[in-house]
Amino acid sequence: MTASVQNSSLNRDMLSRMDANDPLAPFRERFVIPESLIYMNGNSLGPLTISARDRMATAVADEWGSQLIRGWNKAGWYDIPWRLGDKIGRLIGAEAGETVVCDSTSVNLFKAVAAACGLRPERKKIVSEVGNFPTDLYVLDGFKRFAGDAFNVDIRPREEIADAIDAQTAVVVLTHVHYVSGEIFPMGEISRLAHDAGALIVWDLSHSAGAVVTDLNGSKADFAVGCGYKHLNGGPGAPAFIFAAKRHHAAMSQPLSGWFGHADPFRFTDDFEPADGVRRLLCGTTGVLSATALEAGVDLMLEADLHAMSEKAVALSDLFQRRAAESCGGHGLELRSPDDARQRGANLSYGHKSGYAIMQNLIARGVIGDFRAPDNMRFGFSPLFMRYTDVFDAVEILRDILESRSYEDSEFSKKHSVT
Amino acid sequence: MTASVQNSSLNRDMLSRMDANDPLAPFRERFVIPESLIYMNGNSLGPLTISARDRMATAVADEWGSQLIRGWNKAGWYDIPWRLGDKIGRLIGAEAGETVVCDSTSVNLFKAVAAACGLRPERKKIVSEVGNFPTDLYVLDGFKRFAGDAFNVDIRPREEIADAIDAQTAVVVLTHVHYVSGEIFPMGEISRLAHDAGALIVWDLSHSAGAVVTDLNGSKADFAVGCGYKHLNGGPGAPAFIFAAKRHHAAMSQPLSGWFGHADPFRFTDDFEPADGVRRLLCGTTGVLSATALEAGVDLMLEADLHAMSEKAVALSDLFQRRAAESCGGHGLELRSPDDARQRGANLSYGHKSGYAIMQNLIARGVIGDFRAPDNMRFGFSPLFMRYTDVFDAVEILRDILESRSYEDSEFSKKHSVT
Repeated sequence: MTASVQNSSLNRDMLSRMDANDPLAPFRERFVIPESLIYMNGNSLGPLTISARDRMATAVADEWGSQLIRGWNKAGWYDIPWRLGDKIGRLIGAEAGETVVCDSTSVNLFKAVAAACGLRPERKKIVSEVGNFPTDLYVLDGFKRFAGDAFNVDIRPREEIADAIDAQTAVVVLTHVHYVSGEIFPMGEISRLAHDAGALIVWDLSHSAGAVVTDLNGSKADFAVGCGYKHLNGGPGAPAFIFAAKRHHAAMSQPLSGWFGHADPFRFTDDFEPADGVRRLLCGTTGVLSATALEAGVDLMLEADLHAMSEKAVALSDLFQRRAAESCGGHGLELRSPDDARQRGANLSYGHKSGYAIMQNLIARGVIGDFRAPDNMRFGFSPLFMRYTDVFDAVEILRDILESRSYEDSEFSKKHSVT
Repeated sequence: MTASVQNSSLNRDMLSRMDANDPLAPFRERFVIPESLIYMNGNSLGPLTISARDRMATAVADEWGSQLIRGWNKAGWYDIPWRLGDKIGRLIGAEAGETVVCDSTSVNLFKAVAAACGLRPERKKIVSEVGNFPTDLYVLDGFKRFAGDAFNVDIRPREEIADAIDAQTAVVVLTHVHYVSGEIFPMGEISRLAHDAGALIVWDLSHSAGAVVTDLNGSKADFAVGCGYKHLNGGPGAPAFIFAAKRHHAAMSQPLSGWFGHADPFRFTDDFEPADGVRRLLCGTTGVLSATALEAGVDLMLEADLHAMSEKAVALSDLFQRRAAESCGGHGLELRSPDDARQRGANLSYGHKSGYAIMQNLIARGVIGDFRAPDNMRFGFSPLFMRYTDVFDAVEILRDILESRSYEDSEFSKKHSVT
């Protein structure tokens, strides 16, 4: 299934033939992608699927509109958190009953960290990474402020993480695929380090789920959270997910104990009795409309071979990097990602002192990547809708912008240039 | 504007003329209400508005579908939490900049309680009500478990609340309109009791916002939360809102510090710096699609006169109660709400030992109320789409069911009868 691109000098016709032979190519038609765009931002906001568009119209007009309150049972709204959670579970190496969909990634991370720390009450140290996705660090900061000064949040550069994990460590909180560089943490290895020290591991899969083969149970992960609106194509602000390994279910608890985490929410009792299993990680009512769009995205993804997707993402990213090295050299692009495409997820970044202006020029010409402060241009490689020729064309446009230096004249060049 | 129904023996023709003269009557056409239904459950899930249906189609196909990531700025997704928060603020007596839309009511209550307790660090007592909406009590339980055993959550019957508020009390957490009885807490009076004791007040407005005139600032409220999918007609699982009085903004903090609560989320720094004002109560990314439906519901409500709405809700509820007393006497209905319609919000409950079966029979005949354990039949009175004749017809159907005792034969009669 691997789409190997051995020769980066492949011309466009050869890439066009690769697209024609790509077993994942038919998935592109299932998405709504404006004809004029090369969308390299599925890692930030996945595009609309045809099925999500249709499903949303039904959910709004037929379910909410006609069934009204009866939709909770008739339309299956009530079951969404665990029904959809189990579907996502199949993409991340979870068993049924280990994943629920709810809240935002940030809120879920708070719950996961609190639950994990609750399982290691005698330990007061949390290890994470410098430059982790900011909200993860902000949530740890909030947890520490709230849980008390006894907690020590030890934020280290990647190369020092292993040393930081010690006998005081309750939890290690890391993002599997880095949001800028795409660098992948070896899940099994880090998990073993944490467990050897008696600590637990919490993974943020926001940039992994739906793009990179991820095996939570195979790597003995304890908890995980992740985002619904990136590679899972759930729509803007789609709800997130949270995973807890079965071995922790009986003992775990978390402070956001709302009625959907109750053993019997409609008994309407005053006393909180946690639901069995992963459902005790739920809190309030799930955003049904947003979750419905996410379910359509996930259902589509489950039709694809996850290994083939992951391989194609690697091939697309590798092609971009090698074409860029050939075509765009001498213009100050600095690779901010591992050199080996297999060591990164489905996103890749380049630093450039005029990164912001160049990205705005790319966007104006229909290549939609994004900019991440201070100077990173980030490109995503979504295997279900991207073509090899898209990568070729994107690099040609990037080359043209760099060679013509058109970005220097643009309205964006001054205010965001990093000097 | 008051639609006074002095004579409960009014016949249907007279009520029909009241509908014809009702200044709020034209709003009904702005909703999608199935012709065959009398929908008395807007207090649980508000119905779809025409504008929400259209707005959602645009949000999905044109904004997500065509603008993709650019929708965050172009379609105004980024601003939704505070833009929509300010709109809801106008319905609850908040100033601009005091309300944001985000997360669920449960998650927001956790933040509000934590923020309030943080402002009274030397006090460790939280007062709430027996039989409060369950998730509120569950959240307080979670807060106490997490914040430490020093906290005492003192849950009292309504008549003992005033006595329970003392010099140890950090926060009083109450629901303005009770979810079963509809009983209204006098906001100003309770707020004064709390403040006189040096405590703060947190209101849950889930059953008030959009149905009952609510004046947060006029009553000197400190914090408030509320639901988007009840009277605000935001759709199933719509995001909730949270309010903080301006006088607390500078000093308040809360533990769910995610990136949307950061002073500059897109600076992507490692250190959390809280946003100014109420935005520091935000956590993760808001569910844009769900919030979009809510905005349509709130926009419609802002076209109406809130006082006229509130008066009509009282009139509808009063009509129901008096018609039911006349027509349904001797069948074991027990009013579970204040006898005076002005002392309750836009919902009313009756206890009956076969309450579940009777409600199922009502639903089968197109009168959609709901059942709340153990034996309450609950009816909602939404002034924007309900008619006086709807109330008349609903009571006639209820009378018919009670007189014919048809509920005794129904499939529902056995398993849920309370004996």
